[in-house]
Amino acid sequence: MKPLSMSRVVVVGLGLMGGSLAAALCGRCKRIIGLTRRQETAAEAKRRGLVDEGTTCPADALHNADIVVFATPVRTILRQIDEFAQHLRAGCLVMDVGSTKASVLEAMQKLPEGIQPLGGHPMCGKETSGLEGADPDLYRDRTFILCPLSRTSRSALRLGRSLVKTVGARPLLLDAQRQDDLTATLSHLPYLMACSLIQAAHATTSSDPAAWRIVAGGFRDTSRVAGSDVRMMLDILATNQAAVLESATAFRAAFDHLVDLLKSGSEDAVEALLTQARTERRRMYP
Amino acid sequence: MKPLSMSRVVVVGLGLMGGSLAAALCGRCKRIIGLTRRQETAAEAKRRGLVDEGTTCPADALHNADIVVFATPVRTILRQIDEFAQHLRAGCLVMDVGSTKASVLEAMQKLPEGIQPLGGHPMCGKETSGLEGADPDLYRDRTFILCPLSRTSRSALRLGRSLVKTVGARPLLLDAQRQDDLTATLSHLPYLMACSLIQAAHATTSSDPAAWRIVAGGFRDTSRVAGSDVRMMLDILATNQAAVLESATAFRAAFDHLVDLLKSGSEDAVEALLTQARTERRRMYP
Repeated sequence: MKPLSMSRVVVVGLGLMGGSLAAALCGRCKRIIGLTRRQETAAEAKRRGLVDEGTTCPADALHNADIVVFATPVRTILRQIDEFAQHLRAGCLVMDVGSTKASVLEAMQKLPEGIQPLGGHPMCGKETSGLEGADPDLYRDRTFILCPLSRTSRSALRLGRSLVKTVGARPLLLDAQRQDDLTATLSHLPYLMACSLIQAAHATTSSDPAAWRIVAGGFRDTSRVAGSDVRMMLDILATNQAAVLESATAFRAAFDHLVDLLKSGSEDAVEALLTQARTERRRMYP
Repeated sequence: MKPLSMSRVVVVGLGLMGGSLAAALCGRCKRIIGLTRRQETAAEAKRRGLVDEGTTCPADALHNADIVVFATPVRTILRQIDEFAQHLRAGCLVMDVGSTKASVLEAMQKLPEGIQPLGGHPMCGKETSGLEGADPDLYRDRTFILCPLSRTSRSALRLGRSLVKTVGARPLLLDAQRQDDLTATLSHLPYLMACSLIQAAHATTSSDPAAWRIVAGGFRDTSRVAGSDVRMMLDILATNQAAVLESATAFRAAFDHLVDLLKSGSEDAVEALLTQARTERRRMYP
């Protein structure tokens, strides 16, 4: 396979993730092409210098692509992998940046022989969605999970790693189901918690204008991910339902246990639990 | 009452909150004295120039104080208000920076006639506890709740507001029970959630070294307050138990509702709820 510097790269979808990826790759590959649904987005990306070329035509963009990266919401990726397969040429590396991987790999497995698929999930994001938030440094120093399939060649994996490193990220090879289980707990569960906190706070404090003046840093941080893009999150939750529900059950058990200890007034037990959580948190983020 | 610039101010406890308050007041009042349990802390604060004087002797520190601010954990404040009352002179303004207010005001109500009590709760903090984290800008631009008692004179309240503004904070007058109810939802509940998230994540991911490489920003922020000082939090939970349990119940209902919708596959309902949470979050933090 050609090295990245000699490759024509197509990024499908120029939202926050795709726009940032294109921006980070622009000038580091032979040509970077943005394939979008709306003409205005393609034009805007071109105007801002994030891509060498923007188009809404899959056939035009894909027929001579060396690398294609899907950066749309997960269920759109599933549909596009199927729809766009006809335009891909043999030897093309097909990647994605969707947050869940088992379903994406299942779709990739059905790609015509000769196509080289490689699942990807960069551990970054922002609450601002869309091209306006695109930032060439979004991927810098972040872990970028890669899930090769059994059909993925060593040279395709090497090219994928090279792309990841070029945008400043750190590749981490992971089994797809294991990545989905881990991100259910470490990413999708925090989102459900944040949304529920906002709901609970709305019900109990929205009638009190003082509430707006006393929301301190703790609430801001705990609720931050509730501002995430809803369409993206719906697709994530739908394609990782079992693992998400399992992590929700684990969280619910931990929360109930803590609340029960508080109710029963067993202060030593509460203290032990809070101390354990603090120690663990400090171990995770020294 | 004397203006702040002419007042001798005693800060009781030189942890993060007290040390920061002393640092912010130093040079803005006649004299700032730190009263601590351990001699080393008093000496360290003096050495770092956070106080004009550090002492471990309540009688020495308090007998000619114009303003006393308690900055110890809430249940220590309750005990100290009672123990130190004998050393206070008539006309002294007694404040605190404890996170719960109903129990503190109850203790303040018992102070000898002539003492001017005023409950306080600044909406700031950090995960680093102790004097080493002391920062003169900790209070800057933060809301500082003030809970006057019926016995609090207008001039005492004026002096309290002046102190709050001098450290750069914005005073907000609030009824003590209302402040406790609001902070239960906006501050104490997020803490319980963060601790439970850490517990749940520990149970499901600690055996997997990959987990440490994929903890992204969402988990970091949602779990941040789990790093708070345990002694401080235990006192807060113990002195605000009813309101905390009520907010925990409201959160659990919201969380269960969302999980039930996910389980039942009612995607339109999930979407409506997540969109509502996103809109609300963006309204709170534009």
